[in-house]
Amino acid sequence: MAGPLDGLRVLDLSSVVVGPVCTGVLAEQGAEIIKLESPEGDLLRKLGGKGRNPGMAGKFLNFNRGKRSICLDLKHPRAKDVLRRIALRCDILVTNIRPDAQKRLGVDAATMAEAAPRLIHCSIVGFGTDGPYAGKPAYDTVIQGVSGVAGCFEASTGEPRYVPMLVADHVCGLIAAQQIGFALYRREKTGRGESLEIPMFENMAGFVLQEHLGAMSFRPALGVPGDLRVLSPEARPLKTQDGYICVSANTDAQAHGFFDAIGRPELKTDPRFATVTARTANTKDYFALRATALTGRPTAEWLDLFTRYDVPAMPYNTIESLLTDPHLRATGMVREEEHPTEGPTFAIGAPNKLSGGMAPPLPAAPRLGADGPAILEAAGFSADEITELAQHGALKTTTGETP
Amino acid sequence: MAGPLDGLRVLDLSSVVVGPVCTGVLAEQGAEIIKLESPEGDLLRKLGGKGRNPGMAGKFLNFNRGKRSICLDLKHPRAKDVLRRIALRCDILVTNIRPDAQKRLGVDAATMAEAAPRLIHCSIVGFGTDGPYAGKPAYDTVIQGVSGVAGCFEASTGEPRYVPMLVADHVCGLIAAQQIGFALYRREKTGRGESLEIPMFENMAGFVLQEHLGAMSFRPALGVPGDLRVLSPEARPLKTQDGYICVSANTDAQAHGFFDAIGRPELKTDPRFATVTARTANTKDYFALRATALTGRPTAEWLDLFTRYDVPAMPYNTIESLLTDPHLRATGMVREEEHPTEGPTFAIGAPNKLSGGMAPPLPAAPRLGADGPAILEAAGFSADEITELAQHGALKTTTGETP
Repeated sequence: MAGPLDGLRVLDLSSVVVGPVCTGVLAEQGAEIIKLESPEGDLLRKLGGKGRNPGMAGKFLNFNRGKRSICLDLKHPRAKDVLRRIALRCDILVTNIRPDAQKRLGVDAATMAEAAPRLIHCSIVGFGTDGPYAGKPAYDTVIQGVSGVAGCFEASTGEPRYVPMLVADHVCGLIAAQQIGFALYRREKTGRGESLEIPMFENMAGFVLQEHLGAMSFRPALGVPGDLRVLSPEARPLKTQDGYICVSANTDAQAHGFFDAIGRPELKTDPRFATVTARTANTKDYFALRATALTGRPTAEWLDLFTRYDVPAMPYNTIESLLTDPHLRATGMVREEEHPTEGPTFAIGAPNKLSGGMAPPLPAAPRLGADGPAILEAAGFSADEITELAQHGALKTTTGETP
Repeated sequence: MAGPLDGLRVLDLSSVVVGPVCTGVLAEQGAEIIKLESPEGDLLRKLGGKGRNPGMAGKFLNFNRGKRSICLDLKHPRAKDVLRRIALRCDILVTNIRPDAQKRLGVDAATMAEAAPRLIHCSIVGFGTDGPYAGKPAYDTVIQGVSGVAGCFEASTGEPRYVPMLVADHVCGLIAAQQIGFALYRREKTGRGESLEIPMFENMAGFVLQEHLGAMSFRPALGVPGDLRVLSPEARPLKTQDGYICVSANTDAQAHGFFDAIGRPELKTDPRFATVTARTANTKDYFALRATALTGRPTAEWLDLFTRYDVPAMPYNTIESLLTDPHLRATGMVREEEHPTEGPTFAIGAPNKLSGGMAPPLPAAPRLGADGPAILEAAGFSADEITELAQHGALKTTTGETP
């Protein structure tokens, strides 16, 4: 059994999060990923916090499982040709290098399409090249701010903030992989590759608008924008006697079950709370009522009660407690692993199940340049050429040590 | 020119957000979507806030563009057979109906695989069927809470809360579409469909762990989990004299440009802020410094200055101001449209560009059951059969009015 992308080769000219998420998904489904890094290495190697060795931060490990690393100095005159020879052997090229820099390296979509008509060239950009923000530099927080993600918090609490995750990078990386899948399907039909442009701003603005344009979808607007239930500042896990619990009671049956569970059956016929429409109109009161309803019992008791009344409810997890969550352990989403160079670590598994076959669990993330010679050999470079490239400094090879 | 999924037919047995996001992506790429609704209609028709007509909430419109609606009463004895006849003609079936209910309706993966071996059956579940939480009911906030999304806010500010968007539903819908693309690619190779299980909890827990396991990726842990820059409570748009601005200065060049732009060039050699590593170790001080640095000038001046110093920076958008953003207008991401039944509205465009061909802009979201007779006719039902199904109450047809 192999993953659906088994046999495909991907050149990953990306760094930090958005590109690595995309190629991480492709790896998880069986593709071979050639991660090309500069001599400084992917910035996440350092920016990703603590590690046992320099350049091997925990966050880097978790975004780069199942990839092979080659380290080329693209400023070296011979590296451009090496890059191109590798690229020509690939099915997919993923990059978040800015379009003008892609051109300088000779790996932009137009140049590659001529030489490799079956290549799927995926360029992740901050802003679409067909609009006035084209070419502006972009990072996750900039995108969160300009796309309205931070604006959702202002609509909720009066103060803008970013989601405490690289949500724009992460989501757009997932979308890039998604669009690559569609292009692969089309390539089977047409025999031809194509170029994809994934603009982060447009994707995240679309995400926010779908969620929250709401009453402002109409011209003239029927009211303020925003799904008021979702924007409620009380949209949070509910306090119990000994912690928090996560409850969702949307349908009438669930809301009525909740009222029964908390010993307030009279609310089932209260005109403010009896129906979906009424609760939506009285979101503030409904959420306020819920916020204080559960402090009298511990979480475990509430979980039992809500199960009995068929109200969706689950324990609240911190980042730490995910590691001991019984479901994540049982499904292999969290497992213990011996990293070949970094020692004992936790490994994060593949979440989705495909009956047609899945790739085996992925090997751990590589040190900078660890696979360079092997990648070049597979690309048809002779042993002499590889040695020469290393001697000239175009190819950086590791000797077990990190930069 | 057509989208990559042109010619594919999708049966959408889903509601609210996670499934509709998935089928919305498939529609955007050219697939035909048959949205099957119960006589009450997709809950989002009501739960989605204000609309001009009942059952046509703004939020519903924005998640259901480009789909056709058929309304069947699946409790009616004849409806199950109708459902099955439609399903057998489809390439893809997307559902977030719980597995046991799928079985009762005869549309579970195993039953369908026998009758339609080329079908790709995508079941979006709260929790994988191979773990102890299997079958538990799930909604977006429950998933945000149990998967650690809310926990990221506790790690940031001390108080858990949900992202003020249906981020678990939305992200998992995007992932479902992604996995369907890979299965479509494999089907071209093997000639066979397959079943996919997309567990929301595992996907979102994986998302959080990749982002924030960090120093706790190592056993024993090298420190507290979390990317401290991202978790900083100061990770927000920065206040200017007249509003907010979104700035990201990660690399040394960007940070040094920022220090120059704010007239503090001495910080470039300050050991706390000179390098990526130093700034990561001193995130709190770095962010505090940034939080108060920009109140002396208006946003427009800062944008000019940061452009000059090559520091990534963009204006801050609220939900409302996205509608007038010049880039979103120029790229067609926001356009004005006359909805055939709901009057003047805003339409949200397709963000990604595919050089191999794209589907034309999608038609607006349908009223409940608007396309039922046409869908049945295309599925081979005779005019008499359709009339009879409507008379018996198995098929609900609209007469221009909504429920």
